[in-house]
Amino acid sequence: MSVRVHAQTLAAEQRTISVAEFFSKNRHLLGFDSPARALLTTVKEAVDNAIDASEEAGLLPEVVVTVARRSGKGNEGIFVVCVEDAGPGIVEEQIARIFGKLLYGSKFHRLAQSRGQQGMGISAAGMYGQLTTGEPMRVVSRTDADSPARELKISIDTQKNRPDIHSKREVPWHRPHGTLVEIAMEGQYQHGHHSIPLYLKLTSVANPHVSLTLVEPDGTTLSFPRSTTALPPAPKRIQPHPHGVELGRLIAMLKATRAKHLDDFLRTEFTQVGRTRSRRIIETAGAGLTGRSYPKRIARQKAVALHRAIGQTKIPAPPADCVVPIGEAGIREGLARELPAAFYAIRTRPPAVYRGNPFLVEVGLAYGRQDAPHVVVTEDGHLRRVGAEGDRRAREPVRLLRYANRVPLLYQRTHCVTTRAISETNWRRYGLEQPPGSLPLGPMTILVHLASVWVPFTSESKEAIAAYPEILREITLALMECGRELGAHLKRERRLDRELERRHAIERYLPHVAGALGEILGLPEAKQREVEDRLDGLVQSSRRTP
Amino acid sequence: MSVRVHAQTLAAEQRTISVAEFFSKNRHLLGFDSPARALLTTVKEAVDNAIDASEEAGLLPEVVVTVARRSGKGNEGIFVVCVEDAGPGIVEEQIARIFGKLLYGSKFHRLAQSRGQQGMGISAAGMYGQLTTGEPMRVVSRTDADSPARELKISIDTQKNRPDIHSKREVPWHRPHGTLVEIAMEGQYQHGHHSIPLYLKLTSVANPHVSLTLVEPDGTTLSFPRSTTALPPAPKRIQPHPHGVELGRLIAMLKATRAKHLDDFLRTEFTQVGRTRSRRIIETAGAGLTGRSYPKRIARQKAVALHRAIGQTKIPAPPADCVVPIGEAGIREGLARELPAAFYAIRTRPPAVYRGNPFLVEVGLAYGRQDAPHVVVTEDGHLRRVGAEGDRRAREPVRLLRYANRVPLLYQRTHCVTTRAISETNWRRYGLEQPPGSLPLGPMTILVHLASVWVPFTSESKEAIAAYPEILREITLALMECGRELGAHLKRERRLDRELERRHAIERYLPHVAGALGEILGLPEAKQREVEDRLDGLVQSSRRTP
Repeated sequence: MSVRVHAQTLAAEQRTISVAEFFSKNRHLLGFDSPARALLTTVKEAVDNAIDASEEAGLLPEVVVTVARRSGKGNEGIFVVCVEDAGPGIVEEQIARIFGKLLYGSKFHRLAQSRGQQGMGISAAGMYGQLTTGEPMRVVSRTDADSPARELKISIDTQKNRPDIHSKREVPWHRPHGTLVEIAMEGQYQHGHHSIPLYLKLTSVANPHVSLTLVEPDGTTLSFPRSTTALPPAPKRIQPHPHGVELGRLIAMLKATRAKHLDDFLRTEFTQVGRTRSRRIIETAGAGLTGRSYPKRIARQKAVALHRAIGQTKIPAPPADCVVPIGEAGIREGLARELPAAFYAIRTRPPAVYRGNPFLVEVGLAYGRQDAPHVVVTEDGHLRRVGAEGDRRAREPVRLLRYANRVPLLYQRTHCVTTRAISETNWRRYGLEQPPGSLPLGPMTILVHLASVWVPFTSESKEAIAAYPEILREITLALMECGRELGAHLKRERRLDRELERRHAIERYLPHVAGALGEILGLPEAKQREVEDRLDGLVQSSRRTP
Repeated sequence: MSVRVHAQTLAAEQRTISVAEFFSKNRHLLGFDSPARALLTTVKEAVDNAIDASEEAGLLPEVVVTVARRSGKGNEGIFVVCVEDAGPGIVEEQIARIFGKLLYGSKFHRLAQSRGQQGMGISAAGMYGQLTTGEPMRVVSRTDADSPARELKISIDTQKNRPDIHSKREVPWHRPHGTLVEIAMEGQYQHGHHSIPLYLKLTSVANPHVSLTLVEPDGTTLSFPRSTTALPPAPKRIQPHPHGVELGRLIAMLKATRAKHLDDFLRTEFTQVGRTRSRRIIETAGAGLTGRSYPKRIARQKAVALHRAIGQTKIPAPPADCVVPIGEAGIREGLARELPAAFYAIRTRPPAVYRGNPFLVEVGLAYGRQDAPHVVVTEDGHLRRVGAEGDRRAREPVRLLRYANRVPLLYQRTHCVTTRAISETNWRRYGLEQPPGSLPLGPMTILVHLASVWVPFTSESKEAIAAYPEILREITLALMECGRELGAHLKRERRLDRELERRHAIERYLPHVAGALGEILGLPEAKQREVEDRLDGLVQSSRRTP
């Protein structure tokens, strides 16, 4: 075969690959690499969507998850996962595409903090169900008490990445509004480490306003009721920050804008650019650009000058209200719900920016069980050891709870920037043991939360956060701030411990000292006891107050 | 806003997300998360494509990579990457889509071992260039000495994931056939660990038939000439293996097939199914199915029976010729090119299957420098220490070279199944030190090659292989086989070492023994020396032969 013929042959085989085909073949990228993980990923995607939709509609999220085994034995087989919410519902025209098409959704194109962002998760779950059981998924949705609930059965035409609607009908439903999605799939239901109950429990830790119920395959019902009826503030949407926009993107934005003037373009398409800054950028750019230049006609070379000028202009960080923290109270309550601790340190860092995307880091430390033995200073200034001898777990690595936009991350811990930040922090400085390059050891839980308008995950399964330097830095700073508090606490605890020991030693000799003094001075026994008490008072008051 | 209104508002924001937009925002998934990595990923994608195309056309691959710095200082700035091959070229109608559209290509839809498989890499490189410099990429291609070379400038319309052609023209070119792609991008050119020179060197290690040239930004030219003109055998394409096909996929295949009869369907759409096995499967399925059932009309319940029957039927592993190993000679030569070693152990495992995809694992160990000090047995059976005192690196972790379909993997080593397999193997059993759960220590290089018709990478950047249990198992078996040989070698080396020491000790006393004997027996000096020699010979021959 000649080279020319060969080029033709090769050409004949070139084809478009549908994104559904791509992820069907690479399903491990989306978190469907094993039956156990597939079940968890499905619940996760559906629950995240349910909470997002309810919050956006200003409704208190209420989600019921049912996992039932249809066939198989033990914890393996075909399961039916059903996730039902009391959210705003989905209008019928959108249902098929939302559930039956990958890369379709409302969250990708805006800059706003939300749990979902890719428009892939729930469709991928449906695709996995279809692949392992051949069955379509069932969706019921109702937007209004006055209109009936609609039920659709949907599968994905993988080759074309578009929904196939098998049936559509009205169904009776007890909810006035909400959505239900039901998928049959090969699965494995497990407890512990990477389990659905743990996922829901951790979700409730960071989302005290959410009510979650789980019905397990054996019929057990687990409830995670809400502990507050206050919805967190709705995160504001923003425009991109000028410093995160690369040249190519700037050029594309100039081409696509509706603004007629460059000044307008800068002020409407970016956050934190007003008249003054817009003028300063245009002046710095030079290159013949003025506030009245027509954006669509700005040539590449002028765009290069404009891009450079943006980089040289000081522009404040994005407004803080686009990223919503859990907050100190929420984190403390969440950590306490996990295990009441003797000591907490919690930090919410101010918002920062990576590649133009605002983000914010929160860290919470919970150290030691509340009932672990420790020394306290009593009201009258005495030292006393309290608490039961309990587990000290001193030689175990700390427990890490990772969150991105309030969603707990369960898999791929070692790939996550949070793990890296903790391992690279020197915890020995704060009084903990730490094997080199590893998590510190001790009876401690560390919660790290990243809130961002765009979380850079290391894969589409959204289980680990990529190590952008700015994110690594913020997490590290928050850890160090909490670490210093912990260090001070541990130092104080150890000092009290040592003092109590010293006191015990002195106390043992006080009667003898008092006795000796009494003999020398010929004091009566009552006087001798008084001397002993006064000596004791002296020892107590000489203790430096903490 | 009522709930109903809210559902409508949400609906208005639902949109399709183009795959180019998705990966533009998530570019770290494709290996473009830093300027240094972006440069390497670009070279990697272009070189892999060049070698694939040449091999497919039966041409010896010849690739020239030029990296030039256009602006910036030090090793940072805007670089122009140019990769040129003498392959078959690309017909003009295809150029724009191959370089200007993500998820477009010839390798995704077939089951055949190749370097590329996604149809994304090179377009993503162009997209990154465009994003950081605003410039389109330049492609020159020629399929035939009789027709002129064509030059296209192409960018990607990110919102639509389709090519924008800026210009097209004929250009003079010295090559009768081949392709050149040139991309300007923000980059960082580095040496060492994750560098382009290292990537090319490691490519040449596993691809002795490829000629590679690199012109570095400072003008230095590095050549990696081919050491053989024999092309590796072309891997055969195959049909999927029946045991890897899930129910949903089987249903889709039944719907899509051109076969008119079930018997035909089974024999033409799968590998390793002939008349006998097809008949056995259909008989096992029952459910009213016969060889003449019309595939498109087989209902879900019957498909379930058919799927179960396939699982119950014994079907041999896929034919071996669909996965092509580097081979023992190739691996030994490659390892030797890296560093001539004192000992090699190399294993090519027989083909195995994960999720229906045939694959094959090869492992090569190179232990100790050839010139490291060690004890040899001379021709006359004596022991002698040879080799210079050199680096022993005994306390350093072994060096790991990872390959997938002959492509070196440079990043994400800790996420790779190869690293896991090595760390989980007990190397202490083979005489090496090994910290728990880590790579073993010692002066050793381990090469692991996975050849497969579909490599399951952990992310689209194709730098780490996912830990499918079958793959983990095959790598582990190959490592253990090599490890046992290494263990025997090290045991023998240590025994010789110990013997030589013992010999030295005895030798020191031999003259005294001979002297004492001589005195007792009153022997002349010559006789005394003879006794000493004979005693020496006795000691030598008593050494158990190795």
